[in-house]
Amino acid sequence: MTYCAAINLKDGIVFASDTRTNAGVDHISTFKKTHSFGVAGERVITILSAGNLATSQAVIKMLKKDIEDASERSIYTLPSLFDIAATVGEYANQVKHKSQETAMSQQGFGSTFLVGGQLKGRSSKLYLVYDEGNFIHATQDTPFLQIGESKYGKPILDRAIEFDSSIDDALRALLVSFDSTARSNLSVGFPIDISVYHTNSFTIPQGRRIEENDPYFQNIRDKWSNGLIEILQGFDAPPDDYSL
Amino acid sequence: MTYCAAINLKDGIVFASDTRTNAGVDHISTFKKTHSFGVAGERVITILSAGNLATSQAVIKMLKKDIEDASERSIYTLPSLFDIAATVGEYANQVKHKSQETAMSQQGFGSTFLVGGQLKGRSSKLYLVYDEGNFIHATQDTPFLQIGESKYGKPILDRAIEFDSSIDDALRALLVSFDSTARSNLSVGFPIDISVYHTNSFTIPQGRRIEENDPYFQNIRDKWSNGLIEILQGFDAPPDDYSL
Repeated sequence: MTYCAAINLKDGIVFASDTRTNAGVDHISTFKKTHSFGVAGERVITILSAGNLATSQAVIKMLKKDIEDASERSIYTLPSLFDIAATVGEYANQVKHKSQETAMSQQGFGSTFLVGGQLKGRSSKLYLVYDEGNFIHATQDTPFLQIGESKYGKPILDRAIEFDSSIDDALRALLVSFDSTARSNLSVGFPIDISVYHTNSFTIPQGRRIEENDPYFQNIRDKWSNGLIEILQGFDAPPDDYSL
Repeated sequence: MTYCAAINLKDGIVFASDTRTNAGVDHISTFKKTHSFGVAGERVITILSAGNLATSQAVIKMLKKDIEDASERSIYTLPSLFDIAATVGEYANQVKHKSQETAMSQQGFGSTFLVGGQLKGRSSKLYLVYDEGNFIHATQDTPFLQIGESKYGKPILDRAIEFDSSIDDALRALLVSFDSTARSNLSVGFPIDISVYHTNSFTIPQGRRIEENDPYFQNIRDKWSNGLIEILQGFDAPPDDYSL
């Protein structure tokens, strides 16, 4: 599995992905799942992928080929992030169906994608593209989207993140969300790749890889872990009729 | 969906289940998913169920019929909780297969169960019974087991619960675990049924239903929610190279 999450804030978009990919527990590798594209000053697109690695890589390859061929449907020429999300969805669906036909199996070839960024003259957007090819976008009410092993790390994002949250708040909440997920599920693992796009900067995110022994991350992990236990210990004792 | 969790501690077993059952979002009902059986002073068995409600209810019905018939394989006569778990598994598998045959479909008829308690002369035990009929038991290393919508509420149990934790600690952690789950997933809902079996008491748990507006639960929910935000806000700002 994989865990990727992204948050579309007033001030920018924060992307995070783990780097573990596995086919069974004895075939574990580290792969980058965050890909940033763009033309500085003009358009910035960051794509995160979860699911079948062959499908994810094929889709990224097809997007890159469109750029090389200067195709009219390349992510450098399409007029909106909506169209880019639609193209990612179409490719994802194509590759999945081709693999299913070859393997004569209906299962296991899907990949989902988070596609976020900004095109000059438009507001920043964040989409979740399903392997069926359709997609949804983050809203001010629900500014974050997740793909892959998303459940363990969802409660903290539900509580902590709003559209008006700062980029720093989002980074901290995402680190906690990834820590909880990696702790509860072996198929999600460090390092984590984080990338930040600052609204209206039109600067392609350079990204930062965070290893498990990163001092800042360790500090957050310890404070979080100790803090949770402290809250629990600070609760009053349950009423007597709770242990009947 | 459903969420049930139970923790086998040194001092006893704490069981918790939500009460929401649904078939599509417009068919939501409240059902009890915790069933306690036993002969005071002799044996105590508590069973929690998740999955297809028809299957769960049929299995409970079969267990009750065995008791009424004074069958030699009734949960009142079987010599160990291991045998009781095996019987629950056999019934669960039978009912599932019968429904699958009738519906000519392989999917959607499974139920899983948590089976815990103590028989005179034996230590207390907690089993998770799969719909295939096989089962695992909680250990001192991993004292809790969950069925149903288990992922949202797992991180807090992973962090907070050990075999030596007190019953009160377990109750508090379970309330938080259920709060996180119900907040993140619409198919898990209040009230929550909690039951506590105290080791070597051989007293059948009476159980306690906790409504969402229960004052103690509200207090815990508020302290938890505020506490989490406080921890997040207490983190140092991320290093500058985190937002590249």
